[in-house]
Amino acid sequence: MAGEFDWIARVRERAALSSSVIRGIGDDAAIVRPAPDCDLVISTDTLVAGVHFPLDTAPADVGYKTAAVNLSDLAAMGADPLYATLALSIPSLDPGYVDPLMTALLGALKAHGACLIGGDTTRGPLVLTLTVVGSVPQDGALRRDRAQAGDAVYVSGTLGDAAAALHARGRWRDTSSGERRLARNRLEQRLARPTPRTELGRELRGLASACIDVSDGLCADLGHLCRESGLAAVIDPALLPCSRALLTLVEDPAELRRLQMAGDDYELCFSVAPEREPDLAALAARIHVPLTRIGTLGPGEGVHLLDDDGRLHAPPGAAYEHFL
Amino acid sequence: MAGEFDWIARVRERAALSSSVIRGIGDDAAIVRPAPDCDLVISTDTLVAGVHFPLDTAPADVGYKTAAVNLSDLAAMGADPLYATLALSIPSLDPGYVDPLMTALLGALKAHGACLIGGDTTRGPLVLTLTVVGSVPQDGALRRDRAQAGDAVYVSGTLGDAAAALHARGRWRDTSSGERRLARNRLEQRLARPTPRTELGRELRGLASACIDVSDGLCADLGHLCRESGLAAVIDPALLPCSRALLTLVEDPAELRRLQMAGDDYELCFSVAPEREPDLAALAARIHVPLTRIGTLGPGEGVHLLDDDGRLHAPPGAAYEHFL
Repeated sequence: MAGEFDWIARVRERAALSSSVIRGIGDDAAIVRPAPDCDLVISTDTLVAGVHFPLDTAPADVGYKTAAVNLSDLAAMGADPLYATLALSIPSLDPGYVDPLMTALLGALKAHGACLIGGDTTRGPLVLTLTVVGSVPQDGALRRDRAQAGDAVYVSGTLGDAAAALHARGRWRDTSSGERRLARNRLEQRLARPTPRTELGRELRGLASACIDVSDGLCADLGHLCRESGLAAVIDPALLPCSRALLTLVEDPAELRRLQMAGDDYELCFSVAPEREPDLAALAARIHVPLTRIGTLGPGEGVHLLDDDGRLHAPPGAAYEHFL
Repeated sequence: MAGEFDWIARVRERAALSSSVIRGIGDDAAIVRPAPDCDLVISTDTLVAGVHFPLDTAPADVGYKTAAVNLSDLAAMGADPLYATLALSIPSLDPGYVDPLMTALLGALKAHGACLIGGDTTRGPLVLTLTVVGSVPQDGALRRDRAQAGDAVYVSGTLGDAAAALHARGRWRDTSSGERRLARNRLEQRLARPTPRTELGRELRGLASACIDVSDGLCADLGHLCRESGLAAVIDPALLPCSRALLTLVEDPAELRRLQMAGDDYELCFSVAPEREPDLAALAARIHVPLTRIGTLGPGEGVHLLDDDGRLHAPPGAAYEHFL
């Protein structure tokens, strides 16, 4: 039985490419150039009920998240969203379910500049596949494979909120009132309604050297960036940005760190040449998105964590794989 | 509970479009123009195990058909296939299943000029969603909504073979030997391995006034073309092209006619101005694809069948709907 990443590597080897494919399998999205001055970025993501979201998830949250996870892939490429197609397999077209689902999905697409141009509706288990198309200036897409040794590693927003809402509910401090109830709502919103970093991705064109979105977990995703760029990353876990809501609910530092590396945050992780870091600080202030320096890239391979004594360690756990 | 076509109509109303969307929901594929001189055609089709193919279908046939039904949508738009993304939800990545599936899928894409540029692999029920992107010269796509009163209606190839293999096996004449066994194999191939009419679609650009592929059934699909073009069609069922294999196995004329209108043939049905019919005959000879005149378009609405006495009738049955 093959694992998901082995399988993708095998398909990648076998997929014949044409000259108009600038980048095929192996990034957050593909880059194609069907005509001169027409660079497009194309990505597909599937959400399966019971796998990617609990069966009792509100239909509006299902619709929103289907759009958001795909828009996040475009953001990680620095693309401006343009179009989407939806393949919806669903047991029945109950309006009480599909209407709020579509309202949220169409709303999220529209908020990021994309419109639904087609799709397919079939009877079957609840599986949603969205394909999104965005545009970038020629050769302007943010790829995983263009980081340079010496670049700084940054991450947007905060890490760990979504994983806390998904995995750590049972271990939260009492949330019956006040600040902790607000914190709980905030974490649950971060899981159900992640914000695609569309504007940030667009602004990082020409500024970041490489970029990826953090969906499978920081170390797993940064590991992809390192592998594609032929570099090693050294990350200081103490620098990982953490929301006040997460600090309010989770006390144990080891638990906090584990959550921060667990994924589902849909933040962007990217590399920047040191001389461009002042531009990055100005950008963060201008678009009101926190950007935090969490480490550096250098020769070697893999992601390495720095402990308080300056020693390097392997990251805990592995990436989320569907088939392990 | 909404039917599939009502649902699509509702989504179509609600999907906001931008100026670069030449045609959104409502055709075999969408037409977009992300940059000047860059007209693209985008389509998505999903195959659900147990709904679109029996669970015991050979994996190579599943892979082939996933590509073929999508390429057929591009053919119906007159597009040259360029790219595809595959969203694969599957219970396990057993190489004995996924390898032949991918070999057939990649082979079919390549045979028609398309390459796989990305996708998503997730654990879940067996559901395959392929999104395909093709190109056309600016304003060159074949649409459903450009037929004119007085145009002739044509269909490519033959009709009924796939439906015979799908629905009529139990009623075939004895196929234990000789010609009838060959005929049976031929019909089963037509169901499992439909040929996307890519070359025909490309050649019909600038020649056909409107075009659609016959997947849901001749009358249903021609009905879409009529509705989008604001016309009525009159079809002579006696003119519907029939393969020798089908005639070999099915004797009853009523059964034959029912099968010919049942869909799954992935032939193209298109309209042509009368003065262009000689060009069409030359095209058929040149590319070795039978093209048969089966009726005409005129003012009114709906698809009407002509009987032997010259009287008009409503077509039997309705289109295949997933949710009825």
